Amino acid sequence: MPDNHKRELYIALVHYPVLNKTGDVICSAVTNLDLHDIARAARTFGVKKYFVVTTLEDQKALTGKIVKHWTDGKGGELNPARREALSLIRVCDSVDDVIMDVKSEHSGEDISLIVTTAKSRSKSVSYAEIREKLNGNGPCVLLFGTAWGLADEIIDSADYVLEPLKGAGSYNHLSVRSAVSIVLDRLTTV
Amino acid sequence: MPDNHKRELYIALVHYPVLNKTGDVICSAVTNLDLHDIARAARTFGVKKYFVVTTLEDQKALTGKIVKHWTDGKGGELNPARREALSLIRVCDSVDDVIMDVKSEHSGEDISLIVTTAKSRSKSVSYAEIREKLNGNGPCVLLFGTAWGLADEIIDSADYVLEPLKGAGSYNHLSVRSAVSIVLDRLTTV
Repeated sequence: MPDNHKRELYIALVHYPVLNKTGDVICSAVTNLDLHDIARAARTFGVKKYFVVTTLEDQKALTGKIVKHWTDGKGGELNPARREALSLIRVCDSVDDVIMDVKSEHSGEDISLIVTTAKSRSKSVSYAEIREKLNGNGPCVLLFGTAWGLADEIIDSADYVLEPLKGAGSYNHLSVRSAVSIVLDRLTTV
Repeated sequence: MPDNHKRELYIALVHYPVLNKTGDVICSAVTNLDLHDIARAARTFGVKKYFVVTTLEDQKALTGKIVKHWTDGKGGELNPARREALSLIRVCDSVDDVIMDVKSEHSGEDISLIVTTAKSRSKSVSYAEIREKLNGNGPCVLLFGTAWGLADEIIDSADYVLEPLKGAGSYNHLSVRSAVSIVLDRLTTV
């Protein structure tokens, strides 16, 4: 597997705009374990940065405080592996800010914005197609929604919609932590 | 993919005997999110039962109470998908009890006990080999350790040690929730 396979992959966990149970657009709450589990998976599979997207000031402050405990504080001293994982986290206001951050590191390159959904969409692409892209030149940004999934405006703005994760049957209620882990494994190690 | 591929797979999350940071054998605490995330992954990938192994009476009672909230209580009414997942959970005293439970459903069949570890072992087998076994006749029981991993006595008693999950490099500090999700995906959908 070539080394550049993974150098170009970024992920973002989106808390706004996402849907609630009844389909309204909301800003969901950041949860501590999403930070830890997804950072550990990101570090394992060679992701360059893990963006946490929220518009709420108190949530940004809370996320920053948790991350700091593990990167600069007591947590990281006691558990260096956790420090290594959580140091990938960047807090952002919006998906646009995520793209700007990635652009600033890859000037002149094409950035592919890929969204993940649990529902089938007509124009979705396969894992094999995205793996192919990761072997190309430009960086890929993979978005994951919290709550009941990414709002349509985000899905419509993406270059690609990754096909939904399927298991043994029609049940597709994985946690976002499990979904990120499996998607990263499928895209980078198969 | 044949349907029997998944009918025969059982998983257990072991809280005793596992190791702590300094290598002592301990009983770790059950955590709520391990119940939910792993039950959802188990349901997604067609696992027949998800055993939670702990010797502690208060932990067994707590686990039973959480599961009941989602299978018979208000939780399941509000979220039937969660009820479907958590109804796979069985609380057990020991790995021996897990094996006895599986034996009671498969009398006369060979049961394969497979352990997962984050460290390389000399006699470990590949995902492809275990997938092969899942296409056979007997049921497979897959054990996952919490804390710093399964105690040697459990690893030594197994028929197979599954090769450790590898990502982009040497970093292998996935959460048990991520590890279970990826292992189930690799064993049942590739």
